[in-house]
Amino acid sequence: MNNKNIYMDYQSAKPVDAEVIDSMNEYHQTRYGNPSSLHKIGDDATETLDSSRETIAKWIHGEKDEILFTSGATESINLGIIGYALRNKRKGNHIIMSEVEHISLHNIAKYLERNGFQISKVPVDQYGRIKLNKLRSRIKEETILISVQMANNEIGTIQPIKEIGEIAKEKGIAFHTDAVAAEGQMDIDVQANNINLMTLSSNDIYGPRGVGVLYMQKGFRVQPLIIGGGQERGFRSGSENMPGIVGMKKAVDILEHKMGAELERMKLFQKLFIKEILESNPDTYLNGHPVHRLINNSHFRFDGIEGESILLSFKDKNIAVSTGSACSSKTLEPSHTLIATGLLHEEAHGSLELTTGRYTSLEEVKTVIEEVPGIVKRLRDLSPLYKK
Amino acid sequence: MNNKNIYMDYQSAKPVDAEVIDSMNEYHQTRYGNPSSLHKIGDDATETLDSSRETIAKWIHGEKDEILFTSGATESINLGIIGYALRNKRKGNHIIMSEVEHISLHNIAKYLERNGFQISKVPVDQYGRIKLNKLRSRIKEETILISVQMANNEIGTIQPIKEIGEIAKEKGIAFHTDAVAAEGQMDIDVQANNINLMTLSSNDIYGPRGVGVLYMQKGFRVQPLIIGGGQERGFRSGSENMPGIVGMKKAVDILEHKMGAELERMKLFQKLFIKEILESNPDTYLNGHPVHRLINNSHFRFDGIEGESILLSFKDKNIAVSTGSACSSKTLEPSHTLIATGLLHEEAHGSLELTTGRYTSLEEVKTVIEEVPGIVKRLRDLSPLYKK
Repeated sequence: MNNKNIYMDYQSAKPVDAEVIDSMNEYHQTRYGNPSSLHKIGDDATETLDSSRETIAKWIHGEKDEILFTSGATESINLGIIGYALRNKRKGNHIIMSEVEHISLHNIAKYLERNGFQISKVPVDQYGRIKLNKLRSRIKEETILISVQMANNEIGTIQPIKEIGEIAKEKGIAFHTDAVAAEGQMDIDVQANNINLMTLSSNDIYGPRGVGVLYMQKGFRVQPLIIGGGQERGFRSGSENMPGIVGMKKAVDILEHKMGAELERMKLFQKLFIKEILESNPDTYLNGHPVHRLINNSHFRFDGIEGESILLSFKDKNIAVSTGSACSSKTLEPSHTLIATGLLHEEAHGSLELTTGRYTSLEEVKTVIEEVPGIVKRLRDLSPLYKK
Repeated sequence: MNNKNIYMDYQSAKPVDAEVIDSMNEYHQTRYGNPSSLHKIGDDATETLDSSRETIAKWIHGEKDEILFTSGATESINLGIIGYALRNKRKGNHIIMSEVEHISLHNIAKYLERNGFQISKVPVDQYGRIKLNKLRSRIKEETILISVQMANNEIGTIQPIKEIGEIAKEKGIAFHTDAVAAEGQMDIDVQANNINLMTLSSNDIYGPRGVGVLYMQKGFRVQPLIIGGGQERGFRSGSENMPGIVGMKKAVDILEHKMGAELERMKLFQKLFIKEILESNPDTYLNGHPVHRLINNSHFRFDGIEGESILLSFKDKNIAVSTGSACSSKTLEPSHTLIATGLLHEEAHGSLELTTGRYTSLEEVKTVIEEVPGIVKRLRDLSPLYKK
């Protein structure tokens, strides 16, 4: 990383850990066999595929045969939701999700609605937490699937996954969770939480891009979206991306010995961000939950200014920040997540998301904290919306 | 590569070029931005994505906006065929392909047939070349798509792509070609050959796995199979696999300065394989076309023995060979490609595929040639089927 640049947008993309890169290089150059081949280098690939699946399964308290490798989180979400809906449509055509899911799920909802499914979206409270009584009241005879993220990718709010899993189990409904924002920051236990389908991304734990996992519990089945040679037990065809899979496995191995200290450090950064930015800037609020919150995430709202102007002001100072989800940052729409928490459009527009990660330093955090008041004051002085 | 092992199965999987790995490492570690982000490292990713698209487009004589990045050849084939069929079903429900397509297409055909489409498969001659008069006779009012591979992945036969493109154009039918086996071994020109949709793989030109391209000509549209944040102009959502895309671009760059000499060398290897193996082994035949043939491919049939036994005999000698498509090598079914050329089941079973590549040496070729007669003789001595 260029030391002159400060990166506070780990939620959008993460660098790949150097140990992960080393682990992949071998599979690019010397252990490049196709697991479908019957010769030695093919057998080696088969064994590697198997042991990678096992490592990843153990990490989430699942079984080896419940891990399906995909090309990334978006594909996993598609396979988990569209694949499950199409495969199980005879059981019912109703799906429940939260209002604060990743943009992918909202677009998937539109697709499913055009194809005969009904989607109910459960509202959230002012902190972005799903209202469990509303979830219960949405359940119908035809409900086949509930999808609620483990934690929010924008404001970092952690959902009551255990309670949702219990409701789903009690009603005999499948439960999918998008664990992308949460993974690497909290323990994930599919058994204890009654999770039947779960989306994981490799890059979000410092593994390579282009790799993801759909956890699919025994007894649950999806219709494949990509058809071909029958890899991944027919649920996802295509020659396996072996270096990518090995890289994701390595990223999981690394979590075990790096995660503890890493989370301590990030907890301190978050404490500093929230305390200092709220104290040093008037008319400034924290978005998301004060307690049930991912520790990489600090998300603020400033009265009277635009998130995009904040972002560009930081850009001029070689500091990378975000105003919300990277996937929708190029649109001018306010964040659907912030709107769901009850903010007005103009309020939702004035937000700043800071996400830290494995390579964030205390010095960088302090620099960002020092820069905020000047930027906010300058933008407010220029703003016709801010009156004080 | 371990020097003690000889790899003659480049068709199944290829090592990644060292220059490609170098080009990717930078994007794993320092230039890891998400193209959807608005800060500097995000802008850098956007520029890289754009220039990678341009390089790949130029290589195949297409336009930048006609390149869609996917997770690999299988996904591209699905998007090109299923995506095109679903998007254009109001125009007609009939699709034509050849009998010797990759196994993926045959499985896609079954899927489409279950979903209201009709599939016609055009027969091939004894060398595996499509019969153009049969192709013409299969065309109906309802035909919306013709899919024929550029060259066969098992026996290496090159198809009359130009003629097929002309027929498709004349009849106003879209033409998709699977160029995976051909790429890197012959010039690819989508304009000169009237190709509207084309599948490319990164690994087949020594790029990373987990990356592919669907070429989609202006004016042709597919229905997306993976829905989400709207990347790739909405045709393929999911955060872009930037290191993978950069790696594929680098692999294309390398082709320009390595392809010429490489093909000369492989031409010599093929000449030696075909001459020596046919001369030194009785009752041995060449599968595929003697002239219209990929130069990495030498494919033989030995009377009275089983391909699997040949493969295992070579395995004992640390030589990796194939009996056909890696994707179906773990089934006991004979190759559908060989059956389509008119071979009997027992004939199709007795085959050996040798595919060379960038790192094959003359010494390795000679070693393999020397090993064949001993293996064939030993297996025939054990075989109840071989009478001589």
